[in-house]
Amino acid sequence: MKIVVIGANAAGAKAAAKAKRINPKAGITVIDQGSFISYGACGIPYFVADTVRDEKELMSTPVGVVRDPAFFRKVKGVEVITETKAVALDWRNKKVELWTAESGTTSFLDYDRLILATGSSPLVPPLEQCELPGILTVKSMEDATLLKQQAISGKRACVIGAGLIGLETVEALALRGMQVTVVEMCDQVLPGVLDEEMATLLERHIRTHGVQVMTSCRVSGFAGTGHVEKVMTDRGEITADLVVLAVGAKPNVSLARDAGLRIGESGAIAVDDRLRTSVPDIYACGDCCETTSLVTGKSMHVPLGSTANKQGRVAGINAAGGDAVFAGVVGTTIVKVFEFNAGKTGLTELAARAAGYDVETVLSPAPDRAHFYPEAKPIALKLVADRKDGRLLGLQAVGPGAVDKRIDVAATAITFRATAEQISQLDLGYAPPFAAAMDNLIVAADILKNKLSGHARGVSPREVREKMEAEEDFILLDVRSPGEHEATRIAGAKLVPLGVLREKLDSLPKDKEIIAFCKISLRGYEAQKILDAAGFTNVRFMDGGILTWPYELES
Amino acid sequence: MKIVVIGANAAGAKAAAKAKRINPKAGITVIDQGSFISYGACGIPYFVADTVRDEKELMSTPVGVVRDPAFFRKVKGVEVITETKAVALDWRNKKVELWTAESGTTSFLDYDRLILATGSSPLVPPLEQCELPGILTVKSMEDATLLKQQAISGKRACVIGAGLIGLETVEALALRGMQVTVVEMCDQVLPGVLDEEMATLLERHIRTHGVQVMTSCRVSGFAGTGHVEKVMTDRGEITADLVVLAVGAKPNVSLARDAGLRIGESGAIAVDDRLRTSVPDIYACGDCCETTSLVTGKSMHVPLGSTANKQGRVAGINAAGGDAVFAGVVGTTIVKVFEFNAGKTGLTELAARAAGYDVETVLSPAPDRAHFYPEAKPIALKLVADRKDGRLLGLQAVGPGAVDKRIDVAATAITFRATAEQISQLDLGYAPPFAAAMDNLIVAADILKNKLSGHARGVSPREVREKMEAEEDFILLDVRSPGEHEATRIAGAKLVPLGVLREKLDSLPKDKEIIAFCKISLRGYEAQKILDAAGFTNVRFMDGGILTWPYELES
Repeated sequence: MKIVVIGANAAGAKAAAKAKRINPKAGITVIDQGSFISYGACGIPYFVADTVRDEKELMSTPVGVVRDPAFFRKVKGVEVITETKAVALDWRNKKVELWTAESGTTSFLDYDRLILATGSSPLVPPLEQCELPGILTVKSMEDATLLKQQAISGKRACVIGAGLIGLETVEALALRGMQVTVVEMCDQVLPGVLDEEMATLLERHIRTHGVQVMTSCRVSGFAGTGHVEKVMTDRGEITADLVVLAVGAKPNVSLARDAGLRIGESGAIAVDDRLRTSVPDIYACGDCCETTSLVTGKSMHVPLGSTANKQGRVAGINAAGGDAVFAGVVGTTIVKVFEFNAGKTGLTELAARAAGYDVETVLSPAPDRAHFYPEAKPIALKLVADRKDGRLLGLQAVGPGAVDKRIDVAATAITFRATAEQISQLDLGYAPPFAAAMDNLIVAADILKNKLSGHARGVSPREVREKMEAEEDFILLDVRSPGEHEATRIAGAKLVPLGVLREKLDSLPKDKEIIAFCKISLRGYEAQKILDAAGFTNVRFMDGGILTWPYELES
Repeated sequence: MKIVVIGANAAGAKAAAKAKRINPKAGITVIDQGSFISYGACGIPYFVADTVRDEKELMSTPVGVVRDPAFFRKVKGVEVITETKAVALDWRNKKVELWTAESGTTSFLDYDRLILATGSSPLVPPLEQCELPGILTVKSMEDATLLKQQAISGKRACVIGAGLIGLETVEALALRGMQVTVVEMCDQVLPGVLDEEMATLLERHIRTHGVQVMTSCRVSGFAGTGHVEKVMTDRGEITADLVVLAVGAKPNVSLARDAGLRIGESGAIAVDDRLRTSVPDIYACGDCCETTSLVTGKSMHVPLGSTANKQGRVAGINAAGGDAVFAGVVGTTIVKVFEFNAGKTGLTELAARAAGYDVETVLSPAPDRAHFYPEAKPIALKLVADRKDGRLLGLQAVGPGAVDKRIDVAATAITFRATAEQISQLDLGYAPPFAAAMDNLIVAADILKNKLSGHARGVSPREVREKMEAEEDFILLDVRSPGEHEATRIAGAKLVPLGVLREKLDSLPKDKEIIAFCKISLRGYEAQKILDAAGFTNVRFMDGGILTWPYELES
């Protein structure tokens, strides 16, 4: 049995090693066009930032052995051929045509089973003078080295794209002392990952590090003599000594497409749940292929190193004669940007509405552990749920605290189609250094239950803002303490601290619209309940309170 | 509608507030025998350590408002009567008899619905001279204050019991500069929470902080003139200026038992899934009542602040006329001890075997994030699964890294009866600052799958040790690098680095028993596969490698 794998990074390397373990008699050859293999591309921003000193660390096992062809031969029993490109695929005759750059020779390799792990490439939009030196992408080890060389303290960098890789690169370049501007076509950072109000929290934090964030800004091209000097946008020119293009990734599918393999609507190679392509005996895994959303059931392209490893295992087992299934993903992403962590699992509110769900949401900011524990740090959660059955569709989390824990718990819960009720009763670990007695996720799920049952009636900060701008006649009721109100407040809000609300009911009109809020809106909700009970007829609370209010505050 | 709640801590306070929100017309009275209410007892060790300076922080809301009777009256609309004990319950006439210590008066309170939230008390075993001054427990604010006063730097403390509260107290007293000895009757720390080999990892760490850990040591009594001076044990006397009893908690059930309410086998008040006791219109919640294990389906008593809050909500809703269910717990506990975190969810191996499961286990130590990320810290995981269907029954985790995240994900997975296959494909958040591309839990689940399918054959460190002690004829094969072997090794192990194993097959006898290991035993497993493929007939690998070897090492 001859198994050929095209691509020796996360998915391909994993598939090859797993296939060999499953079927030790199989001869396994891995072809890669690059000279570096099995490197952790996700680590590049940390190498650029000098958080990781040596590029070898990105290509090593945890005990420091470099994963080079010798390693794969000796340890994994797998032949790796580098600097060789698979240029054509003749699946009727089960042959791959190879071209070796150095020698300029063409050769053919027979296979019984073929695994495509051709990965993805940074999207390079057709912009004017896009080829100028000093305009880089973040993907290969060669990119990494160039980027690290050109990240010179005091110089100006412009990152195009405020997605995951864009923001990681922003941090890296700022840490190297560069003056960084990030330009994003959409009206927020992390489009697709965070809804607008959550993105605002992150954007504010990024600005505190001296980074200029330009959203709703479209790049038209570049200018410079022999090297990039300027980024041209619809909002003016930006001076830049270094430009990083981070506008997305496209799957490398030319080999597959040219051979007639089915390409999915997302543009990536279509596969079934055993990662079989449309052609017998050819599998695909990693960034080059599609996967299924476990939330919506639809195919999508989500290139991630974590998914690549899982798919590589499944493709390797199946190609070697075993039987494994890759179920799909819920859509989890996470990123650290300076001291903030931001993540998402499942669907954003925007995506859920676009998919046709009747959506309920919760905004819930709170400390990530017992509030009296000195290392407690705030995180803001946003839950997105299906009103029909209370099922959690998505979670977003932003803040300096332990965002990753809540994202991973929610990813697990969403995998099992958990409802608000089930999440609110999860037996999560509690001790003051790790969580509050009621974990952030459980508090948020309780609010969700209160909303779904009609006990709690929330209104989003955006809706409040729109009412203010339309000069609607309503009372924005601040139920915090006088001290909190003194420190920061929303202009025009009326202060009636929760502790005296029951005594001061007469100071409020019973039939006027009232929107109560506090710091996080637990007191806001309590105020709604007190006013409801007192016969007020039109009371709601503002989701997330002042902590997730994305607009100006007075202080 | 009159609702009376006995007990104004986590469960009682939550139940009262929730009941009022559900039914604002209900009159709600909470009775508590103490003078401090709604305090975070779990925070006491941090108050003693001075990590939390002011005891008020333990009794405050996150915005600093003290949760005293005035707070409950003004904000929650609930009457709280402190320093008053419920001494008898006449459920036929729906009356509670109260005794107020200060005035020495008896009174009666009628109810329509009664919620028992009487909590738990530290177990005080009948030991000789147990009443000597200087012998304290950790539960009330009065305990906390005494303990903080007596935690004097340079003096000697002896903590009896190496459970969760015992170890938190050990840390607190050591941080205050005391010389601390901890005495535990069982042969390990955290009995019931960790299996032996996992407990050893934690115990080693505790010793590095100068704490004397005495396991398998039984206390018979105390000695001293006017104040404790000595702890008498079956392993000799221990000098102590301060003794802390932390041998467990017993539910406060005398009021319920005297009134004839059904008490469960665990000794706590029996309740159904709506937290109804055996008597109509009486509910129980929190530390005083039982709950159901979602793993085994059996009733148990697990007093925890997290569960108390969830149960309080359910009891409050039901008492107020709503309908809510408390499903049960999977059995999650977590503790920080110095720089180590240790946690458990579901069943330990010991508990799973005792419950009759056919058990498979995995020991898997690894960095908690990308190994090249500088803040990566090791954690060791132990999975316990049902061989019949691959369902995860339990996870234990120990180490300086993010133990809590993996415990919470596993708690969620166990709630939904997840299998190794499902856990191995969880779409957990990946970026180098948060996890490796393959999260620790996914790596461990993959090993579990390999074991369940027969591909991987593990042997526990204990079994290896027993073979060594019995002088059995087998090869303990160290497949690490020469450098790693030079630094630390298991006595008697034979070194054949994985990278040269394929070349050196002739140096090993084909039919002799071989047990391969490395640092974490991923290479150990690879060695097993290489030797299997080469026709060796009796090869296994040692679970967890040298990192979870709990016995001596040479260096």
